[in-house]
Amino acid sequence: MTTIEAEGSGAESGTAAPVHGYHHQKDEHLKRLRRIEGQIRGLQRLVDEDVYCIDILTQVSASTKALQSFALQLLEEHLRHCVADAAHKGGAEIDAKVEEATKAIARLLRT
Amino acid sequence: MTTIEAEGSGAESGTAAPVHGYHHQKDEHLKRLRRIEGQIRGLQRLVDEDVYCIDILTQVSASTKALQSFALQLLEEHLRHCVADAAHKGGAEIDAKVEEATKAIARLLRT
Amino acid sequence: MTTIEAEGSGAESGTAAPVHGYHHQKDEHLKRLRRIEGQIRGLQRLVDEDVYCIDILTQVSASTKALQSFALQLLEEHLRHCVADAAHKGGAEIDAKVEEATKAIARLLRT
Amino acid sequence: MTTIEAEGSGAESGTAAPVHGYHHQKDEHLKRLRRIEGQIRGLQRLVDEDVYCIDILTQVSASTKALQSFALQLLEEHLRHCVADAAHKGGAEIDAKVEEATKAIARLLRT
Repeated sequence: MTTIEAEGSGAESGTAAPVHGYHHQKDEHLKRLRRIEGQIRGLQRLVDEDVYCIDILTQVSASTKALQSFALQLLEEHLRHCVADAAHKGGAEIDAKVEEATKAIARLLRT
Repeated sequence: MTTIEAEGSGAESGTAAPVHGYHHQKDEHLKRLRRIEGQIRGLQRLVDEDVYCIDILTQVSASTKALQSFALQLLEEHLRHCVADAAHKGGAEIDAKVEEATKAIARLLRT
Repeated sequence: MTTIEAEGSGAESGTAAPVHGYHHQKDEHLKRLRRIEGQIRGLQRLVDEDVYCIDILTQVSASTKALQSFALQLLEEHLRHCVADAAHKGGAEIDAKVEEATKAIARLLRT
Repeated sequence: MTTIEAEGSGAESGTAAPVHGYHHQKDEHLKRLRRIEGQIRGLQRLVDEDVYCIDILTQVSASTKALQSFALQLLEEHLRHCVADAAHKGGAEIDAKVEEATKAIARLLRT
């Protein structure tokens, strides 16, 4: 099922008109997310097989870390492309972009 | 596919001999994890459709939060059952259990 | 000022009637907190001397880590003493204690 | 002691030649940090007076949050000034700046 989904996304990516920073690493992102999806399915297996709670928690931490690391890569590309673009053009847009990025970082930090 | 998997896990849960604290809420845990799996698949869709980075980051934060909240529930049951059990029996086991739980919390905090 | 405060606390610790788990490591806790206080004062110096933002952020991360690590030690002692005590006594108190501890962990995780 | 330090910093801020983004809010930053320093001193008082562990943990969470929030403000100014500056000038510097900022964010997230 996952594979079919992945094929579908591959087929579409040629026709789309992506404008955002992360486009260049789209395939890498999708691969990462599929790996995380696999981790979450692995967690279901662990719960289903009554694996010891602490071992499940270790896996949850690994998945959380993988998600955070995906977020950081996305953020880096966003800063490199969208924010830098706004700065390049000058004007007031940079302030809005930086504020928006900071709010996203705050959500990641859950402050 | 997810549904079939879920059925399978339901069928097995009667024959297993679970000993851990989270057993009583096994179905709830599996439901939560399936929802998180759906969120991760949703993220793949967002990346595939070239959705704006910041909106993807918002979804990543939501998934991370859901995972942390799952971990907290697991931890609470672990403390209530496994750790409390060790304390009840007395002896040195409680120290080992508490140390183990604290290390799991530390991993969640990524300190 | 800090030193006087510290002396005061040393003098009182003999007369107090501490009941909580962390009592045994009170001196260590106070030492840790004084070190963190020093880090925060160091941060003020960095800001005052116009040190490069990224270097200040590195120091903020170190202080946050030190605080989290202090919290984990406190939590471990709490689980070892207060929660284990409640489990030992039996009855309904253990549920309340575990719920309270879990909520404290949730606040640390800022979920 | 703290007050003298604070006075010193006020006196110097007119003569210094600050170049970084956070300069404009230097006074606000110092005020924030002094408040956090006060919170850490408050924590020492709580430990010294044998206050209940959970209540101390609540205060630790508040201090951690205050530090994170300080970090976010610093980061926002850094993005607005230093990173935007690099983007404005063009060239390769923007990549280095963005990578550096992302690493700082990663440290804050403790990934």
